[in-house]
Amino acid sequence: MSRTVYVNGRFLPYEEASIPIMDRGFLFADGIYEVSAVLGGRLVDNEAHLARLDRSLGAIGIRNPHDAAGWTRLQEELIARNGLTEGGVYLQVTRGVAERDFAFPPAGVEPTVVMFTQAKTIANNPLADRGATVVSVEDLRWKRRDIKSVALLAQVLAKQQAAEAGAAEAWMHEDGFVTEGGSSTAFIITEDGRIVTRPLSTAILPGITRRAVLRLAEEAGLTIEERPFSLEEAFAAAEAFFTSASAFVMPVIEIDGRRIGGGQPGPLTRRLRGLYLEMAAA
Amino acid sequence: MSRTVYVNGRFLPYEEASIPIMDRGFLFADGIYEVSAVLGGRLVDNEAHLARLDRSLGAIGIRNPHDAAGWTRLQEELIARNGLTEGGVYLQVTRGVAERDFAFPPAGVEPTVVMFTQAKTIANNPLADRGATVVSVEDLRWKRRDIKSVALLAQVLAKQQAAEAGAAEAWMHEDGFVTEGGSSTAFIITEDGRIVTRPLSTAILPGITRRAVLRLAEEAGLTIEERPFSLEEAFAAAEAFFTSASAFVMPVIEIDGRRIGGGQPGPLTRRLRGLYLEMAAA
Repeated sequence: MSRTVYVNGRFLPYEEASIPIMDRGFLFADGIYEVSAVLGGRLVDNEAHLARLDRSLGAIGIRNPHDAAGWTRLQEELIARNGLTEGGVYLQVTRGVAERDFAFPPAGVEPTVVMFTQAKTIANNPLADRGATVVSVEDLRWKRRDIKSVALLAQVLAKQQAAEAGAAEAWMHEDGFVTEGGSSTAFIITEDGRIVTRPLSTAILPGITRRAVLRLAEEAGLTIEERPFSLEEAFAAAEAFFTSASAFVMPVIEIDGRRIGGGQPGPLTRRLRGLYLEMAAA
Repeated sequence: MSRTVYVNGRFLPYEEASIPIMDRGFLFADGIYEVSAVLGGRLVDNEAHLARLDRSLGAIGIRNPHDAAGWTRLQEELIARNGLTEGGVYLQVTRGVAERDFAFPPAGVEPTVVMFTQAKTIANNPLADRGATVVSVEDLRWKRRDIKSVALLAQVLAKQQAAEAGAAEAWMHEDGFVTEGGSSTAFIITEDGRIVTRPLSTAILPGITRRAVLRLAEEAGLTIEERPFSLEEAFAAAEAFFTSASAFVMPVIEIDGRRIGGGQPGPLTRRLRGLYLEMAAA
């Protein structure tokens, strides 16, 4: 099956999909993106992704070109046209095409919409059985990390550092405290079973999987502490994991070469992954 | 004369110039840019721009696809093909086209090169006679501002705030001190004639015009102080100005609605603009 993508109202072969060089996404990183997971051919927690898309677009003054129902129709059609059963749907909205000038273009310039699918093994990802390794890197990002923009160079550099160290993810830190992963939310679990993750603020992205996992943990009667935690506390944690739309709940067994919880995915982490998989499959 | 641009080895009509949706410049802001001024059909201080391009590319691990002589040939050909006499040549290099994944793509993925010209009145810009107004905004950018990357969303938002206030530029501030303009370097001149601008660090871009102006000021026997200055000091300054490749030396007559130096371009600023114009025309 050849790959079909979506650009500005048209479904077309990947090879033919391009954008003008004056697109503000290309020149200024002036755009927003979202990735929704697909499991069994169906979108996971998609309403929450579309709500965050709408918030991010609003925060930088780009008109949302579709309502949630319109987006969902496009996403589902793209999934069907690509025969995708497991992976993700990526969507990006930029401020459109206009002669290069920093300030917003005149009214009438339409946002650019690009969408494509990526096949990935999520539910039976072998890394989830083995557990992932993580390296810490300085958080170089801007001050509005709650906006899911395509200005991702700091994350690219963070995740490249992880890749070079043979690690699956980079945990970014600032002023001694972990902010979040390069493309995920960071969690630790204390010796007495408290699940710790940083509270929402402009310092981190409001993770969709983060929110679902906190809800599932609460329903299961587990104790949650939303507070910053230091790298030192992470090194000494009983368990650690990260969450994202494409990793779901991913056990962490090593941070900066130090084994966490004996170097095995922890029992509470495995339980949370199971609960999330049940929810996603439902 | 129709507009000709350059993309990956080809000169082609602007209308036909596009990049694939998987270009890392579009998806990740994973690229670097430069703008060299053109005056009388000739590039201004171009070697310095190309040296900074090389440094920026090296800082994020993108291979520079051309040496300085190769870049200059392409820039000059683009100027000739567009009959450009005054304005700028924009060039952008991204990490290339690869399936979306944060870490660097495998070896063999070639950088993307895009170049285009923009006609602008620089030497006889009427704003330089009138003087520009500036508004201050919080500096939201990342921590490696010495790298001239296309992750420019914070600058877009800053300059849009300026545009909405009817101002020509936004001066960004952090911890009470001015960092720089949205796309320029910020200077003030004290009552006793000292030229003050922030020293180079990762907090600001090493401005090419900044460097030339400091050299010209030194040659003219003027006193330079490279140190951070606060917004309050700027409000009370005798003169103020900003520098960039497309503004050269631009007098500032108002910051946040407060008149600077009686609301007229200051004498030392006019002198520095004159010296820079002489150098650029030489």
